[in-house]
Amino acid sequence: MDERITLAHGAGGRQTAELIDKVFRAHLGSEHLTADDAAVIDMPSSGRQAISTDGFIVSPWRFKGGDIGKLAVCGTVNDLASMGAKPMYMTAAFIIEEGFAAADLEEIAASMRRTADAAGITVVAGDTKVAGKGQADGVFITATGVGLISPGVHTSGSLAADGDAVIVTGDIGRHGCTILLARTDLGIDADVDSDCAPLWDTVEDVLSVCPDVHVIRDATRGGVGTVLYEIASQSGKGIVLDRDSIPVDGRVQGVCDLLGLDPLYLACEGRMVIIAPHERADAVVDVLRRHCPHASVIGHVTSSDPGRVIMTTPLGTGALLPYPRGELLPRIC
Amino acid sequence: MDERITLAHGAGGRQTAELIDKVFRAHLGSEHLTADDAAVIDMPSSGRQAISTDGFIVSPWRFKGGDIGKLAVCGTVNDLASMGAKPMYMTAAFIIEEGFAAADLEEIAASMRRTADAAGITVVAGDTKVAGKGQADGVFITATGVGLISPGVHTSGSLAADGDAVIVTGDIGRHGCTILLARTDLGIDADVDSDCAPLWDTVEDVLSVCPDVHVIRDATRGGVGTVLYEIASQSGKGIVLDRDSIPVDGRVQGVCDLLGLDPLYLACEGRMVIIAPHERADAVVDVLRRHCPHASVIGHVTSSDPGRVIMTTPLGTGALLPYPRGELLPRIC
Repeated sequence: MDERITLAHGAGGRQTAELIDKVFRAHLGSEHLTADDAAVIDMPSSGRQAISTDGFIVSPWRFKGGDIGKLAVCGTVNDLASMGAKPMYMTAAFIIEEGFAAADLEEIAASMRRTADAAGITVVAGDTKVAGKGQADGVFITATGVGLISPGVHTSGSLAADGDAVIVTGDIGRHGCTILLARTDLGIDADVDSDCAPLWDTVEDVLSVCPDVHVIRDATRGGVGTVLYEIASQSGKGIVLDRDSIPVDGRVQGVCDLLGLDPLYLACEGRMVIIAPHERADAVVDVLRRHCPHASVIGHVTSSDPGRVIMTTPLGTGALLPYPRGELLPRIC
Repeated sequence: MDERITLAHGAGGRQTAELIDKVFRAHLGSEHLTADDAAVIDMPSSGRQAISTDGFIVSPWRFKGGDIGKLAVCGTVNDLASMGAKPMYMTAAFIIEEGFAAADLEEIAASMRRTADAAGITVVAGDTKVAGKGQADGVFITATGVGLISPGVHTSGSLAADGDAVIVTGDIGRHGCTILLARTDLGIDADVDSDCAPLWDTVEDVLSVCPDVHVIRDATRGGVGTVLYEIASQSGKGIVLDRDSIPVDGRVQGVCDLLGLDPLYLACEGRMVIIAPHERADAVVDVLRRHCPHASVIGHVTSSDPGRVIMTTPLGTGALLPYPRGELLPRIC
């Protein structure tokens, strides 16, 4: 097929069929992916379902530790896992800028397939649109996932309870740091790669030792700090963090120190915040460390200070964590 | 909130929360739409499900007879209905260009809600990303729908059978003609509006008189002609059309005559191609005419000429319909 994507590839005729066959079906094909208007899926006949959607517009589309295809699958899997749902099926809709290299699109589709296979999710339907040169930037992917919620599991930011442990599943901020370094010419030569990873296996292990986990939240855009504020707001509780317990890779901390940034506000794409009953915290951290040695309890939930996130230091002093202002960089995911 | 969308509205912090509250939750809110990572949905415990995804990048986003919000809902409902599936839930992911007017976004969200309510589908999850000025063009929406397939119904382009009737649910090509007139300065003053409409009610009526319908296909991008070629290819059958039976609005035909276009290749967003056993054709057309008086049998399926679409004239001559080259215009939907 053509080396570059043209408007004809999005027009619904022969070239669209060729693009679907040679790129999407070649890499993402399954018995579900037909030429009909929708895919037919089988869901087990009982159980609640989770459904989640996310647009991915990350720039650059290829980065250390991943690419937009891997990111789209991880983001989808992790949103479902956050509800305690086993990821089952996903869709992927591409909006491609005219002139985008077909070989790059193939690399993205192949990466999606590898990640989906590793995570046990099946791509069942897709869509391709092409926007004119300058009407989109490279490639955007919107992914939607459907999962089956494990019986008895109820997670929500609103369920954080007094005394609960606040846990992170690994060192934080690597995805945001990676994109920051890739996008800006800061003259910093730090060898940081994205934490981008699918986490259903991790969540499944957590549920095995703590089926009554209260909150699982994917710490993407806005980072752990933003997620904690969201949970404080949803639950009407306060969150107290222990500064020294927050795991940050030395290279990420180095970049943050140079630029005056706080890793709490850097996006992760393979890290979660988990809030669990205090008495289960050790068991949860034990299973998490099978996946990432840096998993840690970083704080606790309190009925005092509703809606607030407080940072304490080893000296025992406490200060309000600044309210998140959002990402430093647009198009982090 | 701000009059214009800024990068901060896509950054995950306070402005994103405000945008979600004041625009998306205000218009599209339901008990499903929470601040958690995925929505929890209940599906009846038996039956196969259909899932479909589509990106909508139509330009201009507002057109006679609809807008990108209405279009996203209709496209989703109609893709599900094409599988004989009752539309249940949908998601909507927005990619917005920096500087887009917040009031326009509200108009789009309100239009989605009206159309979703009319079609009986619930928006359960969403996402908002903002791309920099010049990195997207206005607003793009990717919608994904989930529906429940009616027991015993099996539709697919591959099921077209020798002797089947080929039916259209109304006059064709109005959406494509509307966008063409809106986008180009041809000096043609034709009062054409888009056929954009949700069609589950129509399909439900068809299934009530013809549960063994073979093919239902949404005639969007590429129009009826492209859909017929897709069905011919999927089924390995030929399709014979009767030129004089194809319903075309006089104004659409007038525009086509002026520009040398064939309405068979103009997109519809509220018309379907239905292929049903010959003996049910009259009953199907009868129920279709309750919805649109122009519904008609336009041809039949044949085992001769596999993979081809043949057009016959009243004189009895036949000619191969040209293979679709795709849309005249990019960003028709």
